[in-house]
Parts: sequence; structure tokens; C-alpha cells
Amino acid sequence: MRIDDWARELLLESRLAYLATSTKHGKPHVVPICYVYDGGSIYSSIDEKPKRTSPPQLRRILNIVENPNVSLLVDQYDEDWSKLRYVIVHGIAEIVHEGEQYERTVLLLREKYPQYRVMKLENRPIIKIKPTRVVAWSAGGI
Amino acid sequence: MRIDDWARELLLESRLAYLATSTKHGKPHVVPICYVYDGGSIYSSIDEKPKRTSPPQLRRILNIVENPNVSLLVDQYDEDWSKLRYVIVHGIAEIVHEGEQYERTVLLLREKYPQYRVMKLENRPIIKIKPTRVVAWSAGGI
Repeated sequence: MRIDDWARELLLESRLAYLATSTKHGKPHVVPICYVYDGGSIYSSIDEKPKRTSPPQLRRILNIVENPNVSLLVDQYDEDWSKLRYVIVHGIAEIVHEGEQYERTVLLLREKYPQYRVMKLENRPIIKIKPTRVVAWSAGGI
Repeated sequence: MRIDDWARELLLESRLAYLATSTKHGKPHVVPICYVYDGGSIYSSIDEKPKRTSPPQLRRILNIVENPNVSLLVDQYDEDWSKLRYVIVHGIAEIVHEGEQYERTVLLLREKYPQYRVMKLENRPIIKIKPTRVVAWSAGGI
């Protein structure tokens, strides 16, 4: 998939993304997530940050299980609005519980986020998002 | 609706929110928006920042017209994850084109964002979100 260089860089470097999921009946839900992008897919762990409920009961997980369509955003805000930029990734999500890809993702997450090096990620679900369409927008020119 | 003081303040002060809409068939879409919160509802203008398409054709507008369920997020990121906070507003959106509420919103937007004082907002649709449920989360304690 063709992605502009600056958009790829924003996807690689951003510390935070915003993940929108939806019930199959169209009730959307948006949360901030930590994630890694490996140049192909995007991965996020249901980590140990306090949650109101157990991982399988989390709204984002329930939504993905019943409806894998997701939309993910990374952006750059600036009070100089000519510098605004964002990238929207439309994709298909799945929940990964184990395996080689799982192990690799845990390593990538710990590389990007030192905070994860002291957090147990094993045995916690990982969301994998396979992009189907990427929209890169910059106020400077579209 | 009862909202924690810090959550109300974050909603009032944050420069940016993330708006998730969805088709009625559950295809979600998320964009960053500038907005104002008047203590009751949340308002956002389809402003003059460059868009790929005309306001009525924008994905967020098309989605709201066919399905008014939305989810909106404001958040505070910090590399010290014990300081993470966010507020999710679930609500019902509608498009406002004119009237007293419309005029008032333009004033509020220009008060919050000096950038809007030199931008024509008149004749551009405004999204109004009436909250139905607010979830305030802070890593420090939920």
C-alpha cells in the first residue's frame, strides 16, 4: 500500500493513536491506544493500565469480535493550523492471543515503550489491525 | 449529567477532541476536531481547513445523517503513565445550519480559538453532540 513518507513516519513515531471500533449496529467507540506499526500492520496490547473490566469484556474487544471494521488515527496538533497533519488507517482488526506474531509484537512494544519493559504483557490479548485504506491529510496541501 | 470536576475541565480546556462516527452498518471513522463544550453539549464546525470534499460529502457528515450515534474523546498523554487521563462522551449528533444556537456556537468557537476569528464560519455546518453517557478514566484511580 502506497503511503506518503511523512505519513509513514508519523505512524511509526507517534506515541499514541486513537482507535475507533463499532458494534455491528453502528454504535462507535473511540479510545487512545499505545501501539506499534511494523510497516505492514498495527498492533496494540490490552495492557495492565487500570481498566474498568477484564480484557475480554472491554468494549473495544467486544466490538472487534462482533465487527472487525476499525478506523485508527494518528495526528499532530499545532496552534499554527497550517502545520496540522493526520493519518487515518481504515482496517480489519483481529485479536491475537499467542504465537510467533504475538511474541514479536511484545518485543516491538517494549522497544518503543520503555514503560512496557516493567509490565507483564504476556497472556494479554493483542489487537492486530491490517490496513485496507490509508488517508493522509496535511493542512499544507492535500 | 454527573461529570467529575477534572473531566469537565478537560472537556472545557482541551484544544482537540477525537470524533468517532459510524455508518449504520458499523464502519467506524475517526477524525480530530476543534470543538467547544458549553457545559451541556459539544459543538464542532466544518471549518475552512482544507478538505478533500465539500461539507455535505464529508464522511463524518454522511455518517451522522444516516446514524446519529457518535463517540468523542478528549485525552491527556504523558510518558509518566500514572498521569494518563481521558474522557469518552457517548452521544447523539445532529447537523445545525442556522439559528440562535448556530450563532452562539460561532461566537464560542471564536472565543476559544483565535484562529477562527479570521476564518469564515458562517454558512458552514456545525455538528452538535448531546451527551448520553460520559466515561472518565484516569490511571491514578477509576
